[in-house]
Amino acid sequence: MLLLDQTALPYSERTLEIRSVRELVDAIRRMSVRGGPAIGVAAAFGVLLELDPRAIEDGADFVGRVRESAALLARSRPTARNLFWALERMVARSTKAAGASDDPQRLRAALVEEARAIQSDDEAACEKIGALGARLLANGMRVFTHCNTGALATAGIGTALAPIYAAARAGVRVRVWVGETRPLLQGSRLTAWELARSGIDATLVVDAAAARLFQLREVDAVLVGADRIARNGDVVNKIGTYALALIAERHGVPFYVAASLSTFDLALASGTEIEIEERSAEEVTRVAGRQVAPDGLRAFNPAFDVTPAELVSAIVTEEKILGRPYEPGIRALLQRGFAGS
Amino acid sequence: MLLLDQTALPYSERTLEIRSVRELVDAIRRMSVRGGPAIGVAAAFGVLLELDPRAIEDGADFVGRVRESAALLARSRPTARNLFWALERMVARSTKAAGASDDPQRLRAALVEEARAIQSDDEAACEKIGALGARLLANGMRVFTHCNTGALATAGIGTALAPIYAAARAGVRVRVWVGETRPLLQGSRLTAWELARSGIDATLVVDAAAARLFQLREVDAVLVGADRIARNGDVVNKIGTYALALIAERHGVPFYVAASLSTFDLALASGTEIEIEERSAEEVTRVAGRQVAPDGLRAFNPAFDVTPAELVSAIVTEEKILGRPYEPGIRALLQRGFAGS
Repeated sequence: MLLLDQTALPYSERTLEIRSVRELVDAIRRMSVRGGPAIGVAAAFGVLLELDPRAIEDGADFVGRVRESAALLARSRPTARNLFWALERMVARSTKAAGASDDPQRLRAALVEEARAIQSDDEAACEKIGALGARLLANGMRVFTHCNTGALATAGIGTALAPIYAAARAGVRVRVWVGETRPLLQGSRLTAWELARSGIDATLVVDAAAARLFQLREVDAVLVGADRIARNGDVVNKIGTYALALIAERHGVPFYVAASLSTFDLALASGTEIEIEERSAEEVTRVAGRQVAPDGLRAFNPAFDVTPAELVSAIVTEEKILGRPYEPGIRALLQRGFAGS
Repeated sequence: MLLLDQTALPYSERTLEIRSVRELVDAIRRMSVRGGPAIGVAAAFGVLLELDPRAIEDGADFVGRVRESAALLARSRPTARNLFWALERMVARSTKAAGASDDPQRLRAALVEEARAIQSDDEAACEKIGALGARLLANGMRVFTHCNTGALATAGIGTALAPIYAAARAGVRVRVWVGETRPLLQGSRLTAWELARSGIDATLVVDAAAARLFQLREVDAVLVGADRIARNGDVVNKIGTYALALIAERHGVPFYVAASLSTFDLALASGTEIEIEERSAEEVTRVAGRQVAPDGLRAFNPAFDVTPAELVSAIVTEEKILGRPYEPGIRALLQRGFAGS
């Protein structure tokens, strides 16, 4: 399994060869692959790494291995819903396939099919999010985005960046403000890199400068992704998102979230219940490999925050654009038999 | 004139020798010396650099040189009020001294006295801000601060850090959350360094993580400095301050500003009229000397933002703690013959 090492971007385009579930867990933890949907797709294919048919005797053994890999991969990062959604699909498919056949070759083929379906479903979801979300954009609009939610974060054209790409294809030009997204600089390293390659007008700011742009009336909309969305519409997303929502509300600017249905978590009543991953102090005390704070300084490094549903103007999914109140719409979409429910 | 080069901290404690006004202007521009009050004091002494009595013929020539140096220094950075306040004091003193004597030796001595007075006035203001501001703090409180407002930014113990130092001296222990303050990382490089040297409990976060701390109810007060305060109480301060004020308001946490009277600008009706310095894109696209964004990417880099007075719970000065509405209190303090008015 080959992965583009996103920690090396934009300095170099380095490819990682992943040979085992354990290697993939490490790659996800250190964020060589990142972005909820991309992690989900990588984990789905990751399950296949431990399924050499020659080493497997029967269907029971096979399902056991899938469950074991899924359990390991689920522990790589706790917050992004898409990871668990993809692993649940792989486990469910393995159980179903094992009910129909004992042949490891056929079982493995079923799981290859499932991983490919997860990938193509995500790709299709991105396209639909792009098409629907582009309706919120108009020529000349100035959109603020945070973190990276484009091709690097998904199997397709992205979630929050998808409407921008879709609009650009249709000749609608928007200007994008990119928040650098400390500590790991996904905004400057990845989003700016993606947008520049696509010829989209992008200007970088430090995260703390966002509010000044609103003060100067330089932002017409905020468009961000999500790592998990509770059934009441609370949005768990990259640290810094909540502050953007508060600033947007103050300035009467719409705050849009774009996410595939695999991001929603019906079991989560609200965002206050979610476990927020805390990452190492070194991500804060070092920048791009260089130490910037005194030795031994403590740092607190939560990877995500929670934006209350009341601050979210709309959520763009691949099925429809949801508005407040979110819970009925989310329940209706997910209970219609969507695999993520 | 010797300056500690703050751009090198905390990596090394390097001293700069400044030999001319032009060298000092450069040092202020690249922020080797920074912090409104510290810039003011440095500029006051800077005026002396071009006043070799052997090169000056009479009092008129002398005042001309002072005005010329002051004009150059005033162009170094446009926002911090203290810089202009200090230069105005030096020019006023030179005019007054030239009215009384024509002897370049005596004129220079008067200006040395004035620069020393500016320094000791600031030192005393810091002490008083510390003593007054400490009344807002209680044992165990968790205070969020931004940028650097301590000994490195002033001639004394600081503005927003002064109450923390004063409280610590009195045995009142507060815990400090330090926002790293991109792009130039004054929080991690300078404030964390200062607090660590003083044995004060400090924990670093990226700027975008501040809102999460409030969400977790981990902040009891915000305490920041100011570069200029309009007569209505609008606060111009390091980029990122305005967002902190919005977050604090949302969470019902008091938002305090600490600043000496030399920071107030009676001529400025509100913060919307102020010129905000824009600094180079490279400060954003590079971190600690390393490029973090693609080549040629545009970046917008405003150095300050404006926090509306309505979001400010109190302003701690060396004379008293001001509350809303600010304008009457500010006018009363400054019109009482304070040199900065």
